[in-house]
Amino acid sequence: MTMDKSVFLEDMDAFAYREVLASGDAIVLIPVGSLEQHGSHLPLGTDTILSSRFAEAVATRLGALVAQPIAYGYKSQQKSGGGNHLSGTTSLDGASLIGVARNLVKSFLNQGVRHVVFINGHFENYQFLYEGIDLALEDLGIGSGAQQSVLLLSYWDFVSQDTLALVYPDGFPGWDIEHGGVLETSLMLHLEPARVALDRLVDGPAAMLPRFDRLPVVPERTPATGCLSSAAGSSANKGILLYEQVVEDLAQDLAAELTRKPAGVPA
Amino acid sequence: MTMDKSVFLEDMDAFAYREVLASGDAIVLIPVGSLEQHGSHLPLGTDTILSSRFAEAVATRLGALVAQPIAYGYKSQQKSGGGNHLSGTTSLDGASLIGVARNLVKSFLNQGVRHVVFINGHFENYQFLYEGIDLALEDLGIGSGAQQSVLLLSYWDFVSQDTLALVYPDGFPGWDIEHGGVLETSLMLHLEPARVALDRLVDGPAAMLPRFDRLPVVPERTPATGCLSSAAGSSANKGILLYEQVVEDLAQDLAAELTRKPAGVPA
Amino acid sequence: MTMDKSVFLEDMDAFAYREVLASGDAIVLIPVGSLEQHGSHLPLGTDTILSSRFAEAVATRLGALVAQPIAYGYKSQQKSGGGNHLSGTTSLDGASLIGVARNLVKSFLNQGVRHVVFINGHFENYQFLYEGIDLALEDLGIGSGAQQSVLLLSYWDFVSQDTLALVYPDGFPGWDIEHGGVLETSLMLHLEPARVALDRLVDGPAAMLPRFDRLPVVPERTPATGCLSSAAGSSANKGILLYEQVVEDLAQDLAAELTRKPAGVPA
Amino acid sequence: MTMDKSVFLEDMDAFAYREVLASGDAIVLIPVGSLEQHGSHLPLGTDTILSSRFAEAVATRLGALVAQPIAYGYKSQQKSGGGNHLSGTTSLDGASLIGVARNLVKSFLNQGVRHVVFINGHFENYQFLYEGIDLALEDLGIGSGAQQSVLLLSYWDFVSQDTLALVYPDGFPGWDIEHGGVLETSLMLHLEPARVALDRLVDGPAAMLPRFDRLPVVPERTPATGCLSSAAGSSANKGILLYEQVVEDLAQDLAAELTRKPAGVPA
Amino acid sequence: MTMDKSVFLEDMDAFAYREVLASGDAIVLIPVGSLEQHGSHLPLGTDTILSSRFAEAVATRLGALVAQPIAYGYKSQQKSGGGNHLSGTTSLDGASLIGVARNLVKSFLNQGVRHVVFINGHFENYQFLYEGIDLALEDLGIGSGAQQSVLLLSYWDFVSQDTLALVYPDGFPGWDIEHGGVLETSLMLHLEPARVALDRLVDGPAAMLPRFDRLPVVPERTPATGCLSSAAGSSANKGILLYEQVVEDLAQDLAAELTRKPAGVPA
Amino acid sequence: MTMDKSVFLEDMDAFAYREVLASGDAIVLIPVGSLEQHGSHLPLGTDTILSSRFAEAVATRLGALVAQPIAYGYKSQQKSGGGNHLSGTTSLDGASLIGVARNLVKSFLNQGVRHVVFINGHFENYQFLYEGIDLALEDLGIGSGAQQSVLLLSYWDFVSQDTLALVYPDGFPGWDIEHGGVLETSLMLHLEPARVALDRLVDGPAAMLPRFDRLPVVPERTPATGCLSSAAGSSANKGILLYEQVVEDLAQDLAAELTRKPAGVPA
Repeated sequence: MTMDKSVFLEDMDAFAYREVLASGDAIVLIPVGSLEQHGSHLPLGTDTILSSRFAEAVATRLGALVAQPIAYGYKSQQKSGGGNHLSGTTSLDGASLIGVARNLVKSFLNQGVRHVVFINGHFENYQFLYEGIDLALEDLGIGSGAQQSVLLLSYWDFVSQDTLALVYPDGFPGWDIEHGGVLETSLMLHLEPARVALDRLVDGPAAMLPRFDRLPVVPERTPATGCLSSAAGSSANKGILLYEQVVEDLAQDLAAELTRKPAGVPA
Repeated sequence: MTMDKSVFLEDMDAFAYREVLASGDAIVLIPVGSLEQHGSHLPLGTDTILSSRFAEAVATRLGALVAQPIAYGYKSQQKSGGGNHLSGTTSLDGASLIGVARNLVKSFLNQGVRHVVFINGHFENYQFLYEGIDLALEDLGIGSGAQQSVLLLSYWDFVSQDTLALVYPDGFPGWDIEHGGVLETSLMLHLEPARVALDRLVDGPAAMLPRFDRLPVVPERTPATGCLSSAAGSSANKGILLYEQVVEDLAQDLAAELTRKPAGVPA
Repeated sequence: MTMDKSVFLEDMDAFAYREVLASGDAIVLIPVGSLEQHGSHLPLGTDTILSSRFAEAVATRLGALVAQPIAYGYKSQQKSGGGNHLSGTTSLDGASLIGVARNLVKSFLNQGVRHVVFINGHFENYQFLYEGIDLALEDLGIGSGAQQSVLLLSYWDFVSQDTLALVYPDGFPGWDIEHGGVLETSLMLHLEPARVALDRLVDGPAAMLPRFDRLPVVPERTPATGCLSSAAGSSANKGILLYEQVVEDLAQDLAAELTRKPAGVPA
Repeated sequence: MTMDKSVFLEDMDAFAYREVLASGDAIVLIPVGSLEQHGSHLPLGTDTILSSRFAEAVATRLGALVAQPIAYGYKSQQKSGGGNHLSGTTSLDGASLIGVARNLVKSFLNQGVRHVVFINGHFENYQFLYEGIDLALEDLGIGSGAQQSVLLLSYWDFVSQDTLALVYPDGFPGWDIEHGGVLETSLMLHLEPARVALDRLVDGPAAMLPRFDRLPVVPERTPATGCLSSAAGSSANKGILLYEQVVEDLAQDLAAELTRKPAGVPA
Repeated sequence: MTMDKSVFLEDMDAFAYREVLASGDAIVLIPVGSLEQHGSHLPLGTDTILSSRFAEAVATRLGALVAQPIAYGYKSQQKSGGGNHLSGTTSLDGASLIGVARNLVKSFLNQGVRHVVFINGHFENYQFLYEGIDLALEDLGIGSGAQQSVLLLSYWDFVSQDTLALVYPDGFPGWDIEHGGVLETSLMLHLEPARVALDRLVDGPAAMLPRFDRLPVVPERTPATGCLSSAAGSSANKGILLYEQVVEDLAQDLAAELTRKPAGVPA
Repeated sequence: MTMDKSVFLEDMDAFAYREVLASGDAIVLIPVGSLEQHGSHLPLGTDTILSSRFAEAVATRLGALVAQPIAYGYKSQQKSGGGNHLSGTTSLDGASLIGVARNLVKSFLNQGVRHVVFINGHFENYQFLYEGIDLALEDLGIGSGAQQSVLLLSYWDFVSQDTLALVYPDGFPGWDIEHGGVLETSLMLHLEPARVALDRLVDGPAAMLPRFDRLPVVPERTPATGCLSSAAGSSANKGILLYEQVVEDLAQDLAAELTRKPAGVPA
């Protein structure tokens, strides 16, 4: 394998990259994660790792490129990530995340990239990425009907009902408290087993959080584990299931939207 | 009724207001809405009207005050409000909404208000309000354990499963496409019937939107009605049901959180 | 009366609004006020109430529309509003007010509105509104000669010398200390008598403030009433006089500027 | 005369300056002007020159220091300076001017300066300087009762009624159209005669501008001279009168406010 | 090797990380790079790769931790990186990079990290990182004498004169045109040989750039290779020399400054 | 000499300035300095004074104009200016300096100036000026190939090797510690001898600063003099040498770049 066969922009040289741009239909995927506590059994980089792995798989199937991840995310909120007060959680404010997304969109589209796709892996990021994209398109004067586009998605929105039923045989507790729970743990067990410490997993009931956000947070409302639902029942097999179904759907949807033919799953 | 019995800050004079502050436990509710197209049967101010009405009802029960609403919201997104390209939709960018929320929190807490509660009625606002609150508390040096607090909620998060089952006998289509649909229309029929033009309502299938956001938007993906799900089946009776249950739950939860005794429902 | 005959955008549905836009010469008036102490006899919302009432009257005569007011204004300054340290005064910083004005101008002009007119009722707002307008036009690339325009005015700049002489028979004390004084009180007595507590009015000499601004303020320099000049001598009759003359002049000037024929005063 | 006797910070060395700071009651005056067209007879730097000269005179009498002027001002507005579209007028936006003022206040107070006084000479600057000062004090945590203060004034607010009557024997046209008129021209004739080209002065009627601001401006509304009122009738004698009265009043007021004894007028 | 022995925060779980924090003297190194064209023989991620590798080596010797890199840098300038107009170069504006650095410093110091060290690998970043650090310390109220500190350095400032003489036997051309030249190429040949395509290296004379910056750039002034000096003469041996000397000096200096004992070079 | 022969914009009237603009090839030079401690023998305004004097000389030779200087610079850094904690040093943050530069570029280019040249005299300013210029050109839509340009330079980059050898016969210590040293002192002795207090000069060894920046600074690392290298050995003769060589080179380079013929040195 040679360097310029990598899907990662970090690994490509500028001349090889410009050949891709010359095709006129280059797609760049940008994984977005966080550096955030994920309990005692998952690493701080979980969200960045997972969004990067999804981006890599989809890029391979679409013939797209993967940019360096945005490795720090918006402040963790208590109801979706335990809260920003927890050590290990290292966050950006809204303006900075908006600024990063805005600059990357402008920079890539100005180079001739046709489609930029943000693959999000940290719940709290979404609206700030959206705003960054919208401001970038206003800066560039790109409106409806343009050949260029920017897509934004969170990978869990591609988990199907069938998969959910298999992964959560006792009923799905809701995306809002899926932080360090069965979904993320299973995916990590499949994709990065060496980075999971299953023996450190602490079981416990799901967090019971109010229907409002309160700031400053009442720290005791976050379980001591830092996880909002138990990861008990996670397995590499569930991870395979989740991963393959999401990659398949993501690749299909992006291919259809961006008029690409997805390649078959690599052997 | 005299002016200073109003729950609305707009109507109070400064001296009457300062008597409330002197109690040390003043609560100010801030409704947040939008000026946004809501189809042919609902007015542009629907989100502001509804959040204001919920705030008024809750304030009456808690002995709280209601500030002027934030009447313009964050950009409408295609998957939750049809999109910001639609005429009638008049929006703020993220920085402005963050700035407004940040200033109001600082201003009220500096005056001696103990709890500020944002009652949100426009889906897209949430994260920007959250950021404004968080920055304000950082500015003020207010951290966990403080006597003061700021709460943030969207009123629909207080609709119970029982209510949902009654309002959507054929199954709830999801909050994401509840824009100009049965919930908002029923509430308006109950609370502001003169502002609803039920004869102009256009029925149609729910919008089928992709699992990603695409910018610039593909305008055709928004139904011509501007509504993401049909309002057919709306009724003032459903509005009463929704309104009373949400007010009850909201008042109970806020009273418990802020150690207030909610008054009985006014006759 | 049906909903779509309202001049208020809040009450119109998107389809009715688009018919107005289709004419090509839609005018939107945006009242701008504040939430600010106005002594013991006027409500906190005085500036927003008055600018909204002027906007409504002018809109009716011009066939224009009225947008939701900007209900929070720039920080009250001691020499024009008593100071921002007074409870009840709830303000925005410059960046936020600039941002709100900038976004509204962009949003309305992008929808096809031809003229946007800010009707200001809070002295301190003016320059920040101006900046917001100027930045919006730069964003949109609209320069001299364009068909579109944005107008900015404070309603008191339309009070004629004749009216002043009648309202202040002992001599006009100057706009700078007209805060909670005869002008605002008389207008409120005419337009919103139920919101004025004339029995709570405290008479007293006009404030004697230095020719400079000092920050932080010396609180004692603001009269205990919070008003910079006495409201004694206010009357609903003076309010009628002020209101009708200003509405007449405003409507005439805007009609001439925007080539509209003002309608006769409604019976 | 030696360098360290200069009132100008630019000319002092750091060690001499620190001796002044050590007294605990150092006052720094900051002139603020603009680079703005002032017709055919006055230089572009008129506002900066005049505010600097007033600052120098007051500093000499108070034993204060004069910082480098803020030589670029906020955008010229048509009703007070002819408009920002005129060549020669070179301006800052609001955020930049706010930022400069905020930084200077913070920097000087952090060094131990006790009072900072902005001497403004360009109408449009005022509110942005005010905002910069207010934000700086918030940053520094300086509130009412502090020993430190920041003052803000425009020098023309210190022109007395008696002086006005002498300078404008036919009646004062109003500060709003005093741009390149008798006041500025007379002051320049007294203070900087070599920089005035009285032979290039073009007489003409005062500008007739509407009571609103319109953007984008209608360029024809600004007289071809760029001046809003005629400078005919200007004289060095009027300049002396204006200058000496304003310096006297300014020095008296600042001395009283900052508890300084003003020195006698230098021979 | 187990996960929690990694020096990379991305790989640690929150509980293991908190044990490090509990020691009171945790050091976090943040590599900063860019995604920038580096000619035809080096990958776009060169700056990020090199700063990360230096951070890793130093962290190992100091018992410090390495945070996720800031993988996008400030705009490439023609005189130091060929210019921001070149495809492959994907950059942040100043405000965004300042914001990211500011947030990371605040986040880490708030968690209890004692020293944060930015290891820069992209020339253009330096001043914006500095500003971000300075603003963060102002936000946190951390001044001289505090136990906490933030250090900022570019790794090439630790290349000794002796090393330079060995690496550039014909004389060092200057850091300003060391972009894709012998230093970066040799380091990459040593550290990441699979990511270097030495066969694609194009030799050529060093760029002759003016002593000023011109914007917009004159594109022809950047050599077609994108490199400002030739990489001819690069070797893995020179890379070893550079790498080991810099790591040694960096570790020694940081250990002395932060009162750590550097460990011996790992076998 | 008459006013309109001045090269200083401050002294020109708008009508004379417009005649220059009408030529189509107007060049405006903007000096940029600081208000910063420069030891006991040089005034706080040294950087602004020197950049202004270079600008004036170059303008005279090129037939260009000189705008008012940016008299406050970015925060002094310990390794290049002793540090921002030293009294006398009065600085802007990055955003403000970026904003000022951005506005000036936009304002001048919009007026029809063809080339704007920033002549920098304070090391720390450079990157923030660069960013302001780049953002302005983006705002204006000016890209490569345009007739307009903006140049940025620090005057010391034009000191030749020959001059250095003459000025520093014992070897040049490096630009990084040339703060209040032989270069600046000699230039001031030549250009502004009355503003130099050579008798107050304190000799001492050059500062030994680490290869990293540390914040907050360790104040003791800055020599008590505030100068980073000794000014001993300064002379007016060295100042003449430096000044004349730099003016010559600057004028030649700018003339060549902007296709101007430099005039001979004035007698």
